[in-house]
Amino acid sequence: MNQTYINELKNHIGEEVTLKGWLYNSRSSGKLVFLQLRDGTGIVQCVCFRPNNEEVFEKAKSLGQESSIIVTGKVKEDTRSAIGVELDVTGLEVIQNASEYPITPKEHGTEFLMDNRHLWIRSKKQHAVLKVRHTVIKATRDFFDNNGFILADTPIFTPAACEGTTTLFEVDYFDDDKAYLTQSGQLYNEATAAAFGKSYAFGPVFRAEKSKTRRHLTEFWMVEPEMAYAQLDDVMTLGEGLIKFIVERVLADRRDELAVLERDVTKLEAILEKGFPRVHYDEAVKLLKEGFAKGELDNDFEWGGDFGAPDETYLSKQFDAPVFVHHFPAVIKAFYFERDKDRPECALGADLLAPEGYGEIIGGGERAMDLEFLEQQIEHHNLPKEAFEWYLDLRRFGTVPHAGFGMGIERCTAWMCGIEHVRETIPFPRMLYRLKP
Amino acid sequence: MNQTYINELKNHIGEEVTLKGWLYNSRSSGKLVFLQLRDGTGIVQCVCFRPNNEEVFEKAKSLGQESSIIVTGKVKEDTRSAIGVELDVTGLEVIQNASEYPITPKEHGTEFLMDNRHLWIRSKKQHAVLKVRHTVIKATRDFFDNNGFILADTPIFTPAACEGTTTLFEVDYFDDDKAYLTQSGQLYNEATAAAFGKSYAFGPVFRAEKSKTRRHLTEFWMVEPEMAYAQLDDVMTLGEGLIKFIVERVLADRRDELAVLERDVTKLEAILEKGFPRVHYDEAVKLLKEGFAKGELDNDFEWGGDFGAPDETYLSKQFDAPVFVHHFPAVIKAFYFERDKDRPECALGADLLAPEGYGEIIGGGERAMDLEFLEQQIEHHNLPKEAFEWYLDLRRFGTVPHAGFGMGIERCTAWMCGIEHVRETIPFPRMLYRLKP
Repeated sequence: MNQTYINELKNHIGEEVTLKGWLYNSRSSGKLVFLQLRDGTGIVQCVCFRPNNEEVFEKAKSLGQESSIIVTGKVKEDTRSAIGVELDVTGLEVIQNASEYPITPKEHGTEFLMDNRHLWIRSKKQHAVLKVRHTVIKATRDFFDNNGFILADTPIFTPAACEGTTTLFEVDYFDDDKAYLTQSGQLYNEATAAAFGKSYAFGPVFRAEKSKTRRHLTEFWMVEPEMAYAQLDDVMTLGEGLIKFIVERVLADRRDELAVLERDVTKLEAILEKGFPRVHYDEAVKLLKEGFAKGELDNDFEWGGDFGAPDETYLSKQFDAPVFVHHFPAVIKAFYFERDKDRPECALGADLLAPEGYGEIIGGGERAMDLEFLEQQIEHHNLPKEAFEWYLDLRRFGTVPHAGFGMGIERCTAWMCGIEHVRETIPFPRMLYRLKP
Repeated sequence: MNQTYINELKNHIGEEVTLKGWLYNSRSSGKLVFLQLRDGTGIVQCVCFRPNNEEVFEKAKSLGQESSIIVTGKVKEDTRSAIGVELDVTGLEVIQNASEYPITPKEHGTEFLMDNRHLWIRSKKQHAVLKVRHTVIKATRDFFDNNGFILADTPIFTPAACEGTTTLFEVDYFDDDKAYLTQSGQLYNEATAAAFGKSYAFGPVFRAEKSKTRRHLTEFWMVEPEMAYAQLDDVMTLGEGLIKFIVERVLADRRDELAVLERDVTKLEAILEKGFPRVHYDEAVKLLKEGFAKGELDNDFEWGGDFGAPDETYLSKQFDAPVFVHHFPAVIKAFYFERDKDRPECALGADLLAPEGYGEIIGGGERAMDLEFLEQQIEHHNLPKEAFEWYLDLRRFGTVPHAGFGMGIERCTAWMCGIEHVRETIPFPRMLYRLKP
């Protein structure tokens, strides 16, 4: 018999349908067994009434958690149900009666759950988080595709170290050659933007950081748009547009999942109403110094430094929307940043700080377009010039003002979901001491 | 002044607009200079007429290939132009007058072009190929998203070798640990399909094969859908749907690019009209033996063997549509394939052979659902059982019939484009001896 999906049941009230899935949970009471059936699209209560069918009732009663079952029954409207329907079971086929499923409804430790990630992703909350992730990615791609960007995947294997090798993963390539896993597609994006005008890369990137914080993964997904004939302001305009588009989509398509996660959606809704403030680094320093004076920050922030997590959280709390900080000190930014003409100690970078303590979720800016300046920077940073010759070609042959940014998908997803740790926002997280399953 | 894009010019006939881009080519004739301007969305002829503006004329005449320029002018209908318009130039701002651009209109060798890949992607043909790639990817994602699949990215870092380590890239993880770059997300997909019912992974995969053929890259992109409660026929139905959806989209959105590539589009159009034949391996062997008898194949194919490129090409020529071959000998397939109950020497696998010699572009099948059978297979293949415990869990807790496939994006793109070599279908190809730029 044809399979009907749980998320379509509302269109089949009064009909007999067949559902194929797994037993999420069950309870029995006298002549009734209630099976919570999940099929990946939702969960529905299936009611087995003993007088209707003794055999079905007995089978249903014996089922262990995560048993694979095919259930036939009549769809009945039920206003108490979250999905508005339940199923009056008429037939039950057991594919496998599972026993001793390791993730029981009781509380488990994170390490145990991570070791069983291949099963943990079946649970309601993980399910919700990963569906939000799906929507964040879909929205991100649609946003760029709808706005004239060409997807140009940048390579994972890179020959040279952009910004030092300490946070790079090294790979044995052929014949004793070494390759490094990409940390960012940006340099390559600059080449594709010169070809396509507007381009983006979207793939996994790798950071061999020995950090064990709630914001770090060794392998995560990043979207990186790049625009030719664009400047710092364009980065902020594009970034604001992207975030609002994602928030809109998540609110439109993932209400149920946000409810499972007990996400306060008013905080997301509020973002759509506001313009994102654009704050000069100088101004941000002033705010941080005020915060220190008021005793709300432990550290007296000095001009020239990079924000720590408490600084970012404090800054974002001063505004009722995500906030861009721009014009960072050049010394804390990569060699390829364009400088402010009037204040060359300032790089034309812009970071977006998410609200609610989610920190930097977009980082980008304008890239230096002058060949000589870049050659000096490469020398100044002791980078191997030969490895950057192709990159310098972009300044030799038709250099233009250009700009772009990167956004980490997992941090964005964590923020949308309102969850603490990025490790739950990717199906199989990879961290300092986590390479399994 | 606001930038207008070349692909929008038809909506601005009679108006003055500003274009920002690069000089693709130019020629002059008496009082006229014709600038071929590219901006990533297209190429338009910009006409500088000396009597109109002496200064613009002189500047235009001096420009080298790939100079970055901002051109203002009036949009004029022009029926001789491929895009239906040209520009009467009234202003010209030169951002950079480039000289000695390495890729001139003359012929260059492939190695030289590959060394200059960061510039080569600006040329008409490469541009067209990569835009077709963009559309293939977009169509693929839309197809799965529209059909209820959840995107669940599988990890790049994997702990164990699925099918031997000889074709795996090894990475130094932390504390002397080793990780291997994924060759396929399939095993993980089986976990996500049990969570979501229908899932797909779409990311880069890696093969350390010492092959230097026109079909091999060490790093390429693969889409891998997986369905719970699905069988061999579902794989073929889904694959046919996907291919037709991609062909339709490419024909709808990339006509101009296919024209640049001189692609015979009638061959793509024909695919939409046909059902894809489904041929049992036994039948395929019979056809290959006939081919040998007729002298059209050098090799007398024997039951039990895997198809070589000439076999695939011969087989696909016997049909007027892409053809599925199914029920391969189990010995040539991976350990996890489900077997035909009546003929256990046959694996429930199905490969799709593309027409025109493009070979296998989809490979998949039904996965074994029985725990004991898989345990035997793992032992039989001398695989480390402990590394597969999580995978075996999927058979312990709610095992179901399930099936899926993988499709390589670059091979599919090469086929759509009608080009010889996959290396042109990815922005920065990585091959045996190619790690740059």
